[in-house]
Amino acid sequence: MNQNYQWYCEHLQKLADVNYSSSVLQWDMEVNMPPKGSDFRARQISTLSGISHDLSIDKKFGNILEKLSEDESLNETEKSNIRESLRDFNRNKKYNRKFVETLSKTISESVMVWTKASKESDFKSFAPFLKKLVDLKRQESELLGYQNHPYDAMLDLYEPKATTQEIDELFSGVKTWLVEFAKKISAKKQNEDEFMFMHYEKDKQWNFGIFLLKQMNFDFEAGRQDLSAHPFTTGFNSLDVRVTTRVNENDLNEMIWGCIHEGGHALYEQGLNSANYGLPSGDSVSLGIHESQSRLWENCIGRGLPYWKANFKKLQDLFPQNLAEVSVEDFYKAINVVKPSLIRTSADELTYHFHILIRFEVEKALMEKSIEVKDVPSVWNQKYKEYLGLDVPDDKNGVLQDIHWSYANFGYFPTYSLGSFYAAQFFSKAKKDIPSLEKNIENGNTKPLLDWLRKNIHQHGKRFSAAELCKRVTGEKLNFGFFKEYSKEKYSLLYHL
Amino acid sequence: MNQNYQWYCEHLQKLADVNYSSSVLQWDMEVNMPPKGSDFRARQISTLSGISHDLSIDKKFGNILEKLSEDESLNETEKSNIRESLRDFNRNKKYNRKFVETLSKTISESVMVWTKASKESDFKSFAPFLKKLVDLKRQESELLGYQNHPYDAMLDLYEPKATTQEIDELFSGVKTWLVEFAKKISAKKQNEDEFMFMHYEKDKQWNFGIFLLKQMNFDFEAGRQDLSAHPFTTGFNSLDVRVTTRVNENDLNEMIWGCIHEGGHALYEQGLNSANYGLPSGDSVSLGIHESQSRLWENCIGRGLPYWKANFKKLQDLFPQNLAEVSVEDFYKAINVVKPSLIRTSADELTYHFHILIRFEVEKALMEKSIEVKDVPSVWNQKYKEYLGLDVPDDKNGVLQDIHWSYANFGYFPTYSLGSFYAAQFFSKAKKDIPSLEKNIENGNTKPLLDWLRKNIHQHGKRFSAAELCKRVTGEKLNFGFFKEYSKEKYSLLYHL
Repeated sequence: MNQNYQWYCEHLQKLADVNYSSSVLQWDMEVNMPPKGSDFRARQISTLSGISHDLSIDKKFGNILEKLSEDESLNETEKSNIRESLRDFNRNKKYNRKFVETLSKTISESVMVWTKASKESDFKSFAPFLKKLVDLKRQESELLGYQNHPYDAMLDLYEPKATTQEIDELFSGVKTWLVEFAKKISAKKQNEDEFMFMHYEKDKQWNFGIFLLKQMNFDFEAGRQDLSAHPFTTGFNSLDVRVTTRVNENDLNEMIWGCIHEGGHALYEQGLNSANYGLPSGDSVSLGIHESQSRLWENCIGRGLPYWKANFKKLQDLFPQNLAEVSVEDFYKAINVVKPSLIRTSADELTYHFHILIRFEVEKALMEKSIEVKDVPSVWNQKYKEYLGLDVPDDKNGVLQDIHWSYANFGYFPTYSLGSFYAAQFFSKAKKDIPSLEKNIENGNTKPLLDWLRKNIHQHGKRFSAAELCKRVTGEKLNFGFFKEYSKEKYSLLYHL
Repeated sequence: MNQNYQWYCEHLQKLADVNYSSSVLQWDMEVNMPPKGSDFRARQISTLSGISHDLSIDKKFGNILEKLSEDESLNETEKSNIRESLRDFNRNKKYNRKFVETLSKTISESVMVWTKASKESDFKSFAPFLKKLVDLKRQESELLGYQNHPYDAMLDLYEPKATTQEIDELFSGVKTWLVEFAKKISAKKQNEDEFMFMHYEKDKQWNFGIFLLKQMNFDFEAGRQDLSAHPFTTGFNSLDVRVTTRVNENDLNEMIWGCIHEGGHALYEQGLNSANYGLPSGDSVSLGIHESQSRLWENCIGRGLPYWKANFKKLQDLFPQNLAEVSVEDFYKAINVVKPSLIRTSADELTYHFHILIRFEVEKALMEKSIEVKDVPSVWNQKYKEYLGLDVPDDKNGVLQDIHWSYANFGYFPTYSLGSFYAAQFFSKAKKDIPSLEKNIENGNTKPLLDWLRKNIHQHGKRFSAAELCKRVTGEKLNFGFFKEYSKEKYSLLYHL
């Protein structure tokens, strides 16, 4: 074996060991840690981050990457690994320690301030920190460089190679067609969903969630589910993937969509090739592609009628007092109620994209300095009126609802919508490739779909960029058309449009 | 502040961050990890160990330690920190990478082989690995150096500054007095303990264990309890201390002694000063002193009558079907049955020390080459006959029962007995210093005892060596007399001697 390449693999795997160790500490922090442990845990994670950063910009590592990038003896996968690693190396090198430390410190402060401010609906106290963060993110985009728009550098952190212009184009479909479509639905008689908010006992919900994960072929020998305040997925290698969920006894939706959504993320992680541990070819492509996996399972499968033909009887038997009189068709209607609302995380799968569009427009405007931080609440509220027809009563239910900005995660929100659009496009192809897909799902057999995802998406890791992967799998560039068709077909029937 | 000393603190705290991160990974491995995650977890822990080792022998660190060791401007605590750190540094420097890697690899193999061999009672398959380990430990003792006996170097790893001669002296009391005392007890009518092995429901046992920990003032805001195959305590700082227990539905002893024992360890960890995080003054003294804390709570308190005067009623109410007819005195007798047995971990608090004595004698003999690995089972069995009067039926119940040797933990076992002897000596002093101690315990008030331990032992960290601490607290060198008196007083009454 090529000695340089071997050194490269070992170095990257060491780096992975450090990063995944940090992930274990973070998982534990969310799931298990007693409250007083937080300060020392923060410094332990910070020390590991420092060690990781040093390894990621190690001089010898850089030299070997340079050599390998010109080594024609490597095979295609090896070449793509080097390409990706060199890209990361060159980006990481651009950060100076002072910037990283300032950003990290500002984030810690901002998260604390946001936590209080969001509870008290007090944008004024958060504004100076948001201003600092925006200034730092503007600095960061200059530091990293970009071609056309400073926001490109932000997007690239989460969705490599995505550009502001591409997102603009995708969202033009949301702004024109989806706004009109949602209005049409709003004019119709609303479907009933009150029974979703009756009392659902915690333990039974938990067990039902585990059943759903098993049915999705989540491998419990290579992962586990726990409870946490906000559901998330993390993995320490493809053979140890952790999902969390939450259970609200007065809203059945939270557990169900949490489980299936995180389950979709987890299947991607479990589907990465463990032989490529630590290498780009063993890593997920981008947040958008990751989100496509969670949303394909959550929305395309989980909010579909065939899925509940397989599972509703079991749910009904668990909660006869709430569901005995409900038909599977009623249930299907209830879980697909479309209704503009103020809070992103509880939005339906259509109006959800207005929430993202608004955040995207605000972030872009902040980065290009066409608005300033003090203008954010009024711009926000105006856009909620425009796209959702809603008056925002206070900042708690408005501009302060999400934690992302206090973590300086600018450029992150768009990947949620990208996920839905990719999901619709992949799902359309999967249905063509697996003629019996609907029948399989009706029978609780999710294996053929998982096999398709493994083969077409999971196993490749980062061998292809998101755009290349999409083209390879679906034959087309990512576009809004598939999501539009999917939505039209589903909701026209549901709302008799 | 002294700049060198500040650098030293920051370096040690970084080292602590890495080591405690590794502890989080190990805790998770025992408590949560899905089975398939083990290989990658092993390499993650190994990478962190490597990083830790590099930091621990960092050249600049060594130079600064040298300078600080001659810096008269430091205060006493600072001086003792430097003394301890320099001692660690000089020891760590003696290990070469090749030795560490060989030992680590041999341990991994040995643990696997032992796991199988101990199940199948097959010493022959384990013997070649034990031989390799003994050879490596002999090498290690030469590498580290020692004054009188190669086993001194082994003891020093777990009980700094302890010598083979000292342990020999302590155990002379076990060999002479305790052997005779246990024989006297054996000649007496045995107390009844059958009700301890009735069916005790898991959840109720768990809740009772949590109750006991709360009563001991274990801080659940700074720690938690979980289940694991073998109970253990670990901490990631004094504000995040984790204990585990196990529950056997057919043996009430396992949960109770597991909880109280680990609780004792945990109170020590929670009692270390978090302001001294990462420094010797924020670290426990030795395994022997650590074990003194677990055994003081488990044996001196937990197996005492006052403790059950406080708690038996609650236990009885939880399990009336088993305990309604049992008096607190009967219960006290049952939990103190003395009876020679083959397995160390389920031995009573007196004959326990024969198990340790045997292991100590075997280890010492192996290190000084007076026996060879092939002789170990016959020597073992002969000693069980001599000290416990028992015939060992097979190696599974004999020489293969403990995992310690496969982890190359030679020199570890004696610290268990040291713990009991220290515990008896500390307890004797605590009773003098707190005249109401027995009354407090009877009332379920363990706070005065904990305050005493905090003040006299926990808060000091490694400021004093084990020997110095013992002298400071009790006015005397560690000796077998206190354990002898404690045992005589307690068991003469229990067995009408």
